[in-house]
Amino acid sequence: MESNPSNGSGARARPRNPSTSPETTPNRPKRNGQTDGATPSTRARAKAPKAQPALARVQGPPPPFDTYPAIAIESVSPELEGGRWPIKRAVGDTIAVEADIFKEGHDLLSARVLYRTVGAPTWQEAPMVPTVNDRWRGEFTVDRNTRYGYTVLAFTDVYGSWRADLVKRVSAAQDVTSELLEGLRLVEQAAERVTDPNVKARLEAYAQRWRDFSGPTAMRERAMLASSAELGEVMDQAHDRSDATRYRRELELIVDRIEARFAAWYEIFPRSQGTDPTRSATFREAEARIPAIADMGFNVLYMTPIHPIGHTKRKGPNNTLVAGPNDPGSPYAIGSEAGGHEAIAPELGTLADFLHFQDLAKRHGMELAIDFAIQVSPDHPWVKEHPEWFYHRPDGTIKYAENPPKKYEDIYPLNFRSSDWKNLWSAWRDVVMLWAERGVRIFRVDNPHTKPLTFWDWMIRDVQSSFPDAIFLAEAFTRPKMMKALAKLGFTQSYTYFTWRNERWEIVEYLTELTQTDMREYYRANFFANTPDILPRILQLGGRPAFRMRLVLAATLSSIYGIYSGFELCESRPRGADSEYYVDSEMYQHKVWDWGRPGNIVDDVKRINQVRRDNPALHLYDNLHFHGADNEQILAYSKATPDNRNIVLGVVNLDPFWPQSAWLDVPAHEWGISGDQPYVVHDLLTDQRFTWRGNYNWVRLDPHVQPAHLFRVEIPR
Amino acid sequence: MESNPSNGSGARARPRNPSTSPETTPNRPKRNGQTDGATPSTRARAKAPKAQPALARVQGPPPPFDTYPAIAIESVSPELEGGRWPIKRAVGDTIAVEADIFKEGHDLLSARVLYRTVGAPTWQEAPMVPTVNDRWRGEFTVDRNTRYGYTVLAFTDVYGSWRADLVKRVSAAQDVTSELLEGLRLVEQAAERVTDPNVKARLEAYAQRWRDFSGPTAMRERAMLASSAELGEVMDQAHDRSDATRYRRELELIVDRIEARFAAWYEIFPRSQGTDPTRSATFREAEARIPAIADMGFNVLYMTPIHPIGHTKRKGPNNTLVAGPNDPGSPYAIGSEAGGHEAIAPELGTLADFLHFQDLAKRHGMELAIDFAIQVSPDHPWVKEHPEWFYHRPDGTIKYAENPPKKYEDIYPLNFRSSDWKNLWSAWRDVVMLWAERGVRIFRVDNPHTKPLTFWDWMIRDVQSSFPDAIFLAEAFTRPKMMKALAKLGFTQSYTYFTWRNERWEIVEYLTELTQTDMREYYRANFFANTPDILPRILQLGGRPAFRMRLVLAATLSSIYGIYSGFELCESRPRGADSEYYVDSEMYQHKVWDWGRPGNIVDDVKRINQVRRDNPALHLYDNLHFHGADNEQILAYSKATPDNRNIVLGVVNLDPFWPQSAWLDVPAHEWGISGDQPYVVHDLLTDQRFTWRGNYNWVRLDPHVQPAHLFRVEIPR
Repeated sequence: MESNPSNGSGARARPRNPSTSPETTPNRPKRNGQTDGATPSTRARAKAPKAQPALARVQGPPPPFDTYPAIAIESVSPELEGGRWPIKRAVGDTIAVEADIFKEGHDLLSARVLYRTVGAPTWQEAPMVPTVNDRWRGEFTVDRNTRYGYTVLAFTDVYGSWRADLVKRVSAAQDVTSELLEGLRLVEQAAERVTDPNVKARLEAYAQRWRDFSGPTAMRERAMLASSAELGEVMDQAHDRSDATRYRRELELIVDRIEARFAAWYEIFPRSQGTDPTRSATFREAEARIPAIADMGFNVLYMTPIHPIGHTKRKGPNNTLVAGPNDPGSPYAIGSEAGGHEAIAPELGTLADFLHFQDLAKRHGMELAIDFAIQVSPDHPWVKEHPEWFYHRPDGTIKYAENPPKKYEDIYPLNFRSSDWKNLWSAWRDVVMLWAERGVRIFRVDNPHTKPLTFWDWMIRDVQSSFPDAIFLAEAFTRPKMMKALAKLGFTQSYTYFTWRNERWEIVEYLTELTQTDMREYYRANFFANTPDILPRILQLGGRPAFRMRLVLAATLSSIYGIYSGFELCESRPRGADSEYYVDSEMYQHKVWDWGRPGNIVDDVKRINQVRRDNPALHLYDNLHFHGADNEQILAYSKATPDNRNIVLGVVNLDPFWPQSAWLDVPAHEWGISGDQPYVVHDLLTDQRFTWRGNYNWVRLDPHVQPAHLFRVEIPR
Repeated sequence: MESNPSNGSGARARPRNPSTSPETTPNRPKRNGQTDGATPSTRARAKAPKAQPALARVQGPPPPFDTYPAIAIESVSPELEGGRWPIKRAVGDTIAVEADIFKEGHDLLSARVLYRTVGAPTWQEAPMVPTVNDRWRGEFTVDRNTRYGYTVLAFTDVYGSWRADLVKRVSAAQDVTSELLEGLRLVEQAAERVTDPNVKARLEAYAQRWRDFSGPTAMRERAMLASSAELGEVMDQAHDRSDATRYRRELELIVDRIEARFAAWYEIFPRSQGTDPTRSATFREAEARIPAIADMGFNVLYMTPIHPIGHTKRKGPNNTLVAGPNDPGSPYAIGSEAGGHEAIAPELGTLADFLHFQDLAKRHGMELAIDFAIQVSPDHPWVKEHPEWFYHRPDGTIKYAENPPKKYEDIYPLNFRSSDWKNLWSAWRDVVMLWAERGVRIFRVDNPHTKPLTFWDWMIRDVQSSFPDAIFLAEAFTRPKMMKALAKLGFTQSYTYFTWRNERWEIVEYLTELTQTDMREYYRANFFANTPDILPRILQLGGRPAFRMRLVLAATLSSIYGIYSGFELCESRPRGADSEYYVDSEMYQHKVWDWGRPGNIVDDVKRINQVRRDNPALHLYDNLHFHGADNEQILAYSKATPDNRNIVLGVVNLDPFWPQSAWLDVPAHEWGISGDQPYVVHDLLTDQRFTWRGNYNWVRLDPHVQPAHLFRVEIPR
């Protein structure tokens, strides 16, 4: 090209609007009147100088880039939507990263996982190894509760590629004199390249040995040195990374503290924790309940809102529109002359009382979670201070909450797109920061799906940049895509559809989606067995056996679960025949409870929380596997630690009314039990032991005696 | 917040290295020595003024962005690896775009597919409609052979949302006076917003009517107008798009001409198309073959390299290392004193002869495809002109090609990472441009997987920016990820593993991957039944019935297929017992053929190409579905047009030796045939007709008579 100066400069004239027809390309000779045959006349015409212009080459512009990725790095996993969302893990977890890594030709490659805490100036490296079909895998362990970045790096293994070819040539008895000169140069260049003086010295010594071989055996001796393991090991510390290619994205990883993944929640209305049915209990009175709650084995104590409650349009018992003078109102109608979301309801006490309560709970091994509900009563201070944060009618009055035709006149919704939105968003973030500074690090967020996704994305990131230990639980009971979106953008945990999943097929389907698909990378399902708003039909109809059965499911299908107080009392009276609300709910009225009333399942709760603590397999979230049972009423599943040292097998009778039996099909071989070797399954709920053999074993569960087995599989070792 | 000036300015002091323990947060009072109980002394301490500092609010920074996406648009399809790669379609195709679209709360949304040819200043819009579970769908049709961009736009349907609430309120007999004032304002604002004078006038008229209602019935009349279909239709032309959110990526779409998706290829060595076994045929002589090839029904005539062949280390017959003086050499050893990749081999003729041949083929309905093989013989002009483009030994000599221990001494590989790589890349691109300017628009690319992926990405994009009709077929027989990568970056079509897929399960598995997974978006499989390098075992062993069977499979499983000449003669002699090479291959020697020799299947080829042309279902690529057959030797599949007006059902006996029969399970109901209604299947290969009923029907195929049925399903309408 350079040798053809007459055509070598200047850009080629390209057709600007190229036709799809070859007939009209500019350099083609016109051949009108040609016939099909190769007649001498057409041949002569075609041979005329004008007919062969194209042999003179023309040039287009060179590539517009100076460097380019030498190696393809594709399909990195885990990765959510092209890196748009972070994945989640907990402190101590090992993250396995995989990628397709390849380049043209036959060179050998080398690859690394790169990882760092976000903003750290340098990467840490973990080796990757090829598995199958150009797929590579590496892993790293995270030890800090913060956000990390990770990506993949690959480069040509120059020396390894050269050595692999050398071995083939030597095996074919080829002369490799020239190749060995290349290999020596690679070693010498490596010695020049490395900075580690020890590696440099060793490489220089190898190069010297290489050069020193002489005589008729020199080629063979050099080849043996070149392909030796010890030289290879040193060369691996001095890779030529000049073509190192980094994956085009840095992926984000949220590393939470363990409690994000493994916790047992207990939900209370603090005002109902006393003994006087005519008034609210105080925090100081509620403290008397802490030892009993802790004794049941819970480690998160979650309280519905603790802020001053509005007076205007206050709701009466059972959500009636008119409240009596002594009715306390819904704690979700937040704000009065006593303050807003920063304040403590006077009937509960002072901030100091709250802090004292928190402190006592902590000394009993429990962390407080508070409710973050972005809605205000008409009496909230911000209504007067920031009228522009609300929705207005044409007549200028502020709109109460509605879901037409339903009206919620005791609540004003916030306008997150108001002209003053930045201050509104900041104010709510500041509320969370304030409570975080007061020591609260777990926030159960009420109805996040009615506020802009971007608000949560920003707010959670902002709070966690100061308090990486902050945990946010999304209480969104809505359509699946929205629930997933909230989890993707950063909510630590999420409520679920669990309370409405009763049939075996739907439990298997839902849990498989949660724990075995991409969802496990970002969605941590907190399985509440009931809530103040959800008294599921199965509990209304199934009585005590249903409570015991649903407790086992919630506490073992997910590593995070909770009950709303009263569950352990088998409280099951709905507001009406078709209602999932509790009758006479403490949401709207003063209430006291007999915490030891007959028929309670406190011992079950205590036992199952103990089993959870004792078995590391139940601390993990995505290790759930279902097993066969030839009776649709029997659900069988297991969770195991990665090393199979702790295996818990759940077998649950989903029918709260009748005994059910089934032949199970469990993967004994996968657990390391060979053939017909007997093994023991130890029921951690009853302390009974059974000897099983192979995969097929029989169970029978009477719900009125014991609705579930929770076996530890004892592997003979 | 603004009302608290003493704390309202200045950023909040946040802990820089926050501890995970609430104990150490800065604003918490220290409570050393506290006991579990709420003793008066601890209570007093906690109540001290210093213990309540946090009630004075502090402020963090506001959101660092001024706008944000109001609406979530996620999981757009089709989309490859987060938009990294373009999808492929052909002119006339309709592209269905789907996305998850949702926002907080209960507003109704409206969405559009946006599309444009790349670089066009404005978008075209196609409506999207919600299907299920927040999934939306829209489609657009492409009519130009060029690259397009597409994305998704969504905005709140402000009026529709308001109207939906209004209807609910009216149904509940609520007073909607205030709401109607809001609605009127929405109509008035729409009238102000729109530019179309006709729409504006209609909106103003509606607003006037709205205002004009009076008296006791005004509210009802206004509500009826507000929710009327006619006003809704006008309001839909005047949407408030102030919160319109565009999906964060513009996705790329390559729209090829139809031949990229539907073509029948015929491969020849032009020098073997003559009648003198002692020398190369010329293009002028080869022209005599064009009518017969065209008569078989092919529309792409693909020629192995037509350039001058090197002399140095020229290969002899059957790839032997020494060539006799009359041996022509491999056409893949390109370049001699007569020129390189721009030149025509003198033994074939001149450029004019080539152009004449091309012209004649075109007049017979065939387009030429040429071979683009980036490798040179030691005699190629560029070896002397650009020695820096090659690999060198320590002694300065140029390296020939090797795959140790194999040596290819007649060929020099190019160093795509040489110091002069930009000129090297440009030179090869210029070769393609030159042939494109000479009228060739189909390039079969030899071994692309041995050159950098980025080279192809740049080169194909660059050539297609001038010649969007250029088609590149990747001849990469290598590992799957590399083959997919080449297709993703832009190769129009790709070779496949088809020749090695013989068992039913592996055919079903491979074709399902090709046509029913993401691969269909970017990978167009060109099914060659044989190639000069691949004489598959099934053809060596199965004889004429195998040729007929594999012809049907290649030509109907994919919409693009090809045969290498000799296939129609059932040429099946390998170079050795374990070889997949042809013996005495025309790759290395002069050869003439008896094109009508006994046992040929020219009539089969002709018939099947006719069937392909006649049946639009066979023009499509990803409409393949397999059906049940209770005999593993019987493969049943169908292809249908989207409207089911053309349905072709293939039933192939995969056993070339023995008759096989099976009960088929075809989806008659999906084809629109109800219950036991009889229907006719018309064998397009034999012209026989059979009357079938329902899904289960019986077939028997004797490979020595007819190895396959190719039914057109005749639906009674």
